[in-house]
Amino acid sequence: MAKKKDSSKIKYQVQGRIWVETPEGALLGNGRIELLMNVQKYGSITKAAKAMKMSYRQAWELIESMNSHSNKIFVVSHAGGKHGGGASLTETGEEAIRKFLDIKRKFEKFIAAESKKFKL
Amino acid sequence: MAKKKDSSKIKYQVQGRIWVETPEGALLGNGRIELLMNVQKYGSITKAAKAMKMSYRQAWELIESMNSHSNKIFVVSHAGGKHGGGASLTETGEEAIRKFLDIKRKFEKFIAAESKKFKL
Repeated sequence: MAKKKDSSKIKYQVQGRIWVETPEGALLGNGRIELLMNVQKYGSITKAAKAMKMSYRQAWELIESMNSHSNKIFVVSHAGGKHGGGASLTETGEEAIRKFLDIKRKFEKFIAAESKKFKL
Repeated sequence: MAKKKDSSKIKYQVQGRIWVETPEGALLGNGRIELLMNVQKYGSITKAAKAMKMSYRQAWELIESMNSHSNKIFVVSHAGGKHGGGASLTETGEEAIRKFLDIKRKFEKFIAAESKKFKL
């Protein structure tokens, strides 16, 4: 076994990850929220996908997955064709970002506080 | 896009995972804590590994990783040789279980409360 050395300076960090599921499967996580935020920023699924080095198809499938797992619409495409027209978030899409980031902020406070207290 | 259907009955579940790191890398997570609890239960790394369908080598490496990332000893082996003798937890090992499960319990309360509130 490793020899016991001075451990008073070890910095312990509680880490974690959160996501939201429905009984149908994954709904929201860091990647999906980033995608929604990029659609909001660029007004386009194509540009959002590009910004994340993701294919259009991948981005589209993530959005479809959110829609189908919640029976809500997160993103609407505008006239101009699938690739040509723009896209924007619905109220649900905007709320999803807001609520996920809100939970994430609270979670980060929680792990920061636990990290501070953690000692072995 | 998916057609909007009734979504009032969708059950949203906030989920998550936590672990503890040091600057050297992963220290404690669900698997490592389960391993420590099994060493405590069976008094043997071999039996603990078997209970988790893990090789002795894997279990040993996880324990070594905990020791080296924290400069603390979590498990001590007793006379009788690496495989023959028993093993037990040190104070540090016991404290690691206690503290990790304590944080996990609080985390589970947090996600249960957030799940209850979550709506889109």
